[in-house]
Amino acid sequence: MNLLECSFCRKNEAFYIRNYEGVGLCHKCLKKNIEDRVRRTISKYKMLKPKDHLAVAVSGGKDSLSLLTIIGKIVKRFPRSKLTAVTVDEGIAGYRDEAIVIAKEYYKKHPVDYEIVSFEDLFQMNLDELVKKMRELSPCSYCGVLRRRAINLAAEKVGADVVATAHNLDDEVQTIMLNIVHGDVSRISRVEPVLEDPNGRFLRRIKPLCEIPEKEVALYAYESGIEFQSTPCPYAATSLRNDMRSMLNRMEVKHPGTKYTILRSTEKLRSALKRYAGKIELKNCQYCGEPTTTDICQVCKILKKAVL
Amino acid sequence: MNLLECSFCRKNEAFYIRNYEGVGLCHKCLKKNIEDRVRRTISKYKMLKPKDHLAVAVSGGKDSLSLLTIIGKIVKRFPRSKLTAVTVDEGIAGYRDEAIVIAKEYYKKHPVDYEIVSFEDLFQMNLDELVKKMRELSPCSYCGVLRRRAINLAAEKVGADVVATAHNLDDEVQTIMLNIVHGDVSRISRVEPVLEDPNGRFLRRIKPLCEIPEKEVALYAYESGIEFQSTPCPYAATSLRNDMRSMLNRMEVKHPGTKYTILRSTEKLRSALKRYAGKIELKNCQYCGEPTTTDICQVCKILKKAVL
Repeated sequence: MNLLECSFCRKNEAFYIRNYEGVGLCHKCLKKNIEDRVRRTISKYKMLKPKDHLAVAVSGGKDSLSLLTIIGKIVKRFPRSKLTAVTVDEGIAGYRDEAIVIAKEYYKKHPVDYEIVSFEDLFQMNLDELVKKMRELSPCSYCGVLRRRAINLAAEKVGADVVATAHNLDDEVQTIMLNIVHGDVSRISRVEPVLEDPNGRFLRRIKPLCEIPEKEVALYAYESGIEFQSTPCPYAATSLRNDMRSMLNRMEVKHPGTKYTILRSTEKLRSALKRYAGKIELKNCQYCGEPTTTDICQVCKILKKAVL
Repeated sequence: MNLLECSFCRKNEAFYIRNYEGVGLCHKCLKKNIEDRVRRTISKYKMLKPKDHLAVAVSGGKDSLSLLTIIGKIVKRFPRSKLTAVTVDEGIAGYRDEAIVIAKEYYKKHPVDYEIVSFEDLFQMNLDELVKKMRELSPCSYCGVLRRRAINLAAEKVGADVVATAHNLDDEVQTIMLNIVHGDVSRISRVEPVLEDPNGRFLRRIKPLCEIPEKEVALYAYESGIEFQSTPCPYAATSLRNDMRSMLNRMEVKHPGTKYTILRSTEKLRSALKRYAGKIELKNCQYCGEPTTTDICQVCKILKKAVL
């Protein structure tokens, strides 16, 4: 094999070496290959049905705009499906406002229905205010909980059947390892490509990029000419996730394929933990009525803490 | 609290700050505290019986000589027990020979029965020769398998009921994380403080230091005036374990207590995986007759590969 020849089309020059598979890809084949793999992930995990109204959570970063681009191509084949982008404005000055401008420009260029909701409207408080009130906690811990709820509310508002988030392979593998490091073993069983309640008490959640490495999602965005926000969140630097990310990236360089191996380990752990833990009983939060495993949901606990 | 006062005796000056508990310890209290914790680990996991003949695997490093020192003090309280040190000479020129001289000096200073066995005698090949023959594999992967067998054979030879190895908290936590990174999920359920076969087909194996961080084992060795080999194994540098070790140490510095949290996560995962996997059927190896889960044991597979 000529080292510089694309292993797929055998015609163009390879510009990216995928170490974990020992292949090289040209610009065109990389884009097509990633789209094909997302399609395969969707089909393998039975993520979508032909008539689904799908809400895609879009932050304005490379992952979510790539997801929206790929999903946009996929839903074109399903004329009875519907697609809406939902964007959450957490209220992070100098960061999220910029991302929302970028997201809106994308929506203008590639016309799609969209809905923007804000922490301010939903929770009467933006993230910058929350951070000041909850100084000792890592912002990622509560922002994640509130953002998840906000995405859900936005998706319900537009009448969606299913919500897609842009978690990539790296996100999923980091989460699983962090659950172990944090001692949250029971959460491993909830890090799934598809999360669905058999009784339909919450919207189905899917992660179509969960088998694509972060690096390749970034390459996809560049190759597709997507304009995205590239500055990191100002609060992210304080998180343990960053340490885990660097460690996993170093491991992947030294031992290509590590991230996929961890994903496969997770699948085995998940089956074991699910059988062990049995069914999780869902209740309704005493305050807001949303489904929760405890008497008061995480969102209400956070908001109560912030007000006190 | 005076920052420099020992949190235990409240008299002497603290020389070591145990960040994960927020306490300071003086030289004397650190030694006593580590011995007490090892006693508690032994009792919690029911590692020893009063009449046991215990074989301690001694390499000549800080962990095994500290274990031998602590166990030596414990068995004095049980007059019907017996203690033998077993040492394996893998045949690593310039490394293990030096460690064996150190171990022998310890045995002379602190009289104890001991037995030395070698890869050369047991497997007709030393590690240096094996490494040359199995160039593509990481030496740690097969050396570990052979060393475990050698320790077992030595313990059986001296008539022991139980084998203690000096795996510390760091070793255990690294192993669990490596199992996940390697995709060997089923092995997690076998990383246990006590490994015992209800039918007695193999010797009980215990790890009395599994709740002591490596750093504190090293301090114990220094405080006890133990001479030990401090140069690392020349083959260890090639191992993924080193990457995991650095990552976990960085995490522990930033987030004290991380290693203990991972150990507790492991205990939960273990219960789930054990119920899921069910009982492991033990067979006898077709070649050597030793207990194994497959038709041919790992030791015979390695030796066969080396001879071919």
